[in-house]
Amino acid sequence: MKEFSFNQATAKYWPLVDVVKGCAAAGVRHVGLWREPVAEYGLSRSAALVKDAGLSVTSLCRGGFFGEDDWYDDNRRALDEAAELGAPALVLVCGGLFGRPLAEARDRVAGGLEALAPHALDVGVTLAVEPMHPMFCADRSVVASFAGALELCAPYPAAAVGITLDTYHVWWDERVFELIAQAGDRIASFQLADWVVPLPADVLVGRGLPGSGHVDFGPLIEAVLATGYDRPIEVEVFNAELWARPGEEILRDTIAAYQSVMV
Amino acid sequence: MKEFSFNQATAKYWPLVDVVKGCAAAGVRHVGLWREPVAEYGLSRSAALVKDAGLSVTSLCRGGFFGEDDWYDDNRRALDEAAELGAPALVLVCGGLFGRPLAEARDRVAGGLEALAPHALDVGVTLAVEPMHPMFCADRSVVASFAGALELCAPYPAAAVGITLDTYHVWWDERVFELIAQAGDRIASFQLADWVVPLPADVLVGRGLPGSGHVDFGPLIEAVLATGYDRPIEVEVFNAELWARPGEEILRDTIAAYQSVMV
Repeated sequence: MKEFSFNQATAKYWPLVDVVKGCAAAGVRHVGLWREPVAEYGLSRSAALVKDAGLSVTSLCRGGFFGEDDWYDDNRRALDEAAELGAPALVLVCGGLFGRPLAEARDRVAGGLEALAPHALDVGVTLAVEPMHPMFCADRSVVASFAGALELCAPYPAAAVGITLDTYHVWWDERVFELIAQAGDRIASFQLADWVVPLPADVLVGRGLPGSGHVDFGPLIEAVLATGYDRPIEVEVFNAELWARPGEEILRDTIAAYQSVMV
Repeated sequence: MKEFSFNQATAKYWPLVDVVKGCAAAGVRHVGLWREPVAEYGLSRSAALVKDAGLSVTSLCRGGFFGEDDWYDDNRRALDEAAELGAPALVLVCGGLFGRPLAEARDRVAGGLEALAPHALDVGVTLAVEPMHPMFCADRSVVASFAGALELCAPYPAAAVGITLDTYHVWWDERVFELIAQAGDRIASFQLADWVVPLPADVLVGRGLPGSGHVDFGPLIEAVLATGYDRPIEVEVFNAELWARPGEEILRDTIAAYQSVMV
């Protein structure tokens, strides 16, 4: 079975040191990390912590938000942090409209990638544009389709700019299989989360563990593996009810959910 | 200014007879109707009511839901009802997954259109497929993109199968202008609603009057008019707070919102 990576956002309130211990104890060899808990624990300490536990970091979340004033410096720092952690990909949530028409806001994202791509190559970390579900287009990411994300990547080598593919954001797209094949080695990070209805009051935190909702995972996983994707697969689930539970339980159920959808 | 049509769902709890009186009194010459209130008042009575008030019916909502057992008979009846009301278009909400993988559920929609297209031509009412926002893909419509809707229309003449284009559902799509041009005379019904954030607990009823949210209406309206679209433009807004107000006020504010975004 393809190796599993536990994205720490799935257990948002579990301290980093416990995530690492818990993963090592459960035989999980890979984690996806977030900048805030890493900064809280200390960047170098975090890097040493995961290394000493024998874990690899599959991605760092998140850069992007290109409409913010300090986007350039902040994204450069995020690339440096990913490099120090040994993460091959920086997940980019590209930012919403910030008061601009859609096309202008997308141009701003393109400009951001252009400015950052050289540094990404320098430090060996891929800027991994995450196409997000269109319900987040206004306020979180104007990159609201897989096809649109691929267009943004096109001018750059795959090592500089790639894709974070999260099933939650793209499962509804009738072109998803065609686009996965087209993406090829652009897929820098592959994440699983399920679509559950009804959506909760805060749509940001209503994702489901794989197998609990409407996503048909088998064909999506198969299609991504067929591109030659050779990194671990993350499970990253934002769910307020899940977060309220003890970290060990979340990890256990996440592993079980992962195994249930793997072919 | 392009003529305005008041979709009665914008004032969900306003009785049909009052909608018609209110529109006539306000100088509104077109309405979009829904099957349930029409059935409640009586189909022939409804047809006479709008005709006597000098109103035209721009669309009837809704057919579709092709996963339901009686989809064929129900959609035939809906076409007949639209014909009796003089509505040129039957809006189709095509139905969600109904437990099937996405591709199969879309095939079911294609099969439904194939079965119904001859009757649509016979009665002179266009089956107007509404591409819906992808957040409704699981439970309301697997036709979750404008491009996907156009593919479903392609085998048929525009008089048989066309598009209901609602800004709320498609504004986020980076290809929307290209697709509007491609749609040409396929656009059988054009509806305006705005995208407001945060989304409410029930995402179905959190749309905004035009101008209250993030949709950039000017270019979208211009693009649709450039296709030669020559029907009135509907405003159709599902909003729980709006619905709680008196019908006359809703109509007044809807007219004002319409005028504010028209070029």
